[in-house]
Amino acid sequence: MLFERVAIVGVGLIGGSFALALKQAKACARVVGVGRGRANLELALDRGAIDAVGTDVSDCDLVLVAAPVAQFPKIFSDLKIGPKALVTDAGSTKRDVIAAARLALGPRIGQFVPAHPIAGGEKSGVGAADAALFRGKRVILTPLAENGAAAVERVRAAWEVCGARVGTMDPAEHDSILSTVSHLPHLLAYALALDVTTRPESARLFEIAGAGFRDFTRLASSHPEMWRDICLANRDCLLEDLRKFSATLELLRTALERGDGKRLEDAFSQARAARDKWLKSSS
Amino acid sequence: MLFERVAIVGVGLIGGSFALALKQAKACARVVGVGRGRANLELALDRGAIDAVGTDVSDCDLVLVAAPVAQFPKIFSDLKIGPKALVTDAGSTKRDVIAAARLALGPRIGQFVPAHPIAGGEKSGVGAADAALFRGKRVILTPLAENGAAAVERVRAAWEVCGARVGTMDPAEHDSILSTVSHLPHLLAYALALDVTTRPESARLFEIAGAGFRDFTRLASSHPEMWRDICLANRDCLLEDLRKFSATLELLRTALERGDGKRLEDAFSQARAARDKWLKSSS
Repeated sequence: MLFERVAIVGVGLIGGSFALALKQAKACARVVGVGRGRANLELALDRGAIDAVGTDVSDCDLVLVAAPVAQFPKIFSDLKIGPKALVTDAGSTKRDVIAAARLALGPRIGQFVPAHPIAGGEKSGVGAADAALFRGKRVILTPLAENGAAAVERVRAAWEVCGARVGTMDPAEHDSILSTVSHLPHLLAYALALDVTTRPESARLFEIAGAGFRDFTRLASSHPEMWRDICLANRDCLLEDLRKFSATLELLRTALERGDGKRLEDAFSQARAARDKWLKSSS
Repeated sequence: MLFERVAIVGVGLIGGSFALALKQAKACARVVGVGRGRANLELALDRGAIDAVGTDVSDCDLVLVAAPVAQFPKIFSDLKIGPKALVTDAGSTKRDVIAAARLALGPRIGQFVPAHPIAGGEKSGVGAADAALFRGKRVILTPLAENGAAAVERVRAAWEVCGARVGTMDPAEHDSILSTVSHLPHLLAYALALDVTTRPESARLFEIAGAGFRDFTRLASSHPEMWRDICLANRDCLLEDLRKFSATLELLRTALERGDGKRLEDAFSQARAARDKWLKSSS
């Protein structure tokens, strides 16, 4: 058994799935759930994701923090961990989470091994939790200089037990890459759904919208509070990505305005070829 | 039997699926395929979508034109139809297709009932054709003042036999709505895929990109030539939609720059609520 007692702070889709996966793999003996919402914790108990509800995590050997990232400073400062406990997280941004952990954990910062599981989607809540959520999915660890090798290995093992493919990355590189391939698409999907919603002819537009619109805007069904926090936490990267994306969109707009069919077709072909190559290599 | 002889000009995904659906429903006796690519027409024969390859459609009582819209002027002007034949099409834009038809068909324009099946996706070619492609999907007819009621009803019947839900709309309204809910998302998906592809760190970005990026950019795997033609044909609407979208995106960018979390969360919530309501009502 990998861990004796595990605490999940924020028992939503990610926290609940992590707990279910550890239990299914018999990698932990007992899970305690910590959170804001009583009803949600009851549901987590019903679903068997957690064995108890509590606030004291001092006897746990692993703590997962899986809440919207803006709550991390308060969560970390409330966290009374034992000297041998390890802490990991599921925050979608890493620089802000690490800064909050440093501030709150002080000399115990070496016990925190930051992680970001790239899994989830637009569903949320422990009701959607699934022991298989992380299977084959990528988890990025962004270890700190203060982390001992054994601590990193134990946290890696926890995510691997959930079925994830675990890699490591520098926190700043993580935030920059995720901004481009995840945070920017979310913002664009929200923008398009908002654009269509706020037009006078909105009802008629939705009536005709088909599968393309549905897939394109799927990310706009993501959790608003969580995504507000991610956008704000990663603001510098995201503003830079918006600038780059807008420049590319402006290239296409100019070609369109000029009726430059060759430029448009070349751009579409280049985009399609790159995407199709990626799909092939990642399948 | 609805039709004796049917001609399909452009036997790709749409044309091939239309032929297969009519045949499966025993709604036509014989289908002739007309097109540019010999190999593709051979495949259409092999797949049973067409019974013969030809160029003479004068003895056909229904002709479907299903090619990239920029080819319509030439196709219409080459089309020698009999006095009782009906012509319909599958063009994603309608004003330009109708203008091309008017020019070429002259006094026979009443025989052309324009249509747009909202089906397909990023696959293309007769190899992907499927008799069930239109089942439950929307087909929009944009009838002309010159169309007799019987002509519209026969064309409607042809699409209904394929399983489609057929509605009618003014051509200009069609182009405006499709620009917003289909052409704009395609352009944005191409822009994001292009943006990521053209960055120096492109390989690393693709390595980390997950399901969100995949769904968001699905439309960027669409056929470049077809989408070049659609964008150019619907340029005025699409430029206007780009202007509106950019204004909405700028609202979000400004909120982000100011760190205005409330504004961001409100916008995300509004977008999500509208999309979720739409999904519920359309399922």
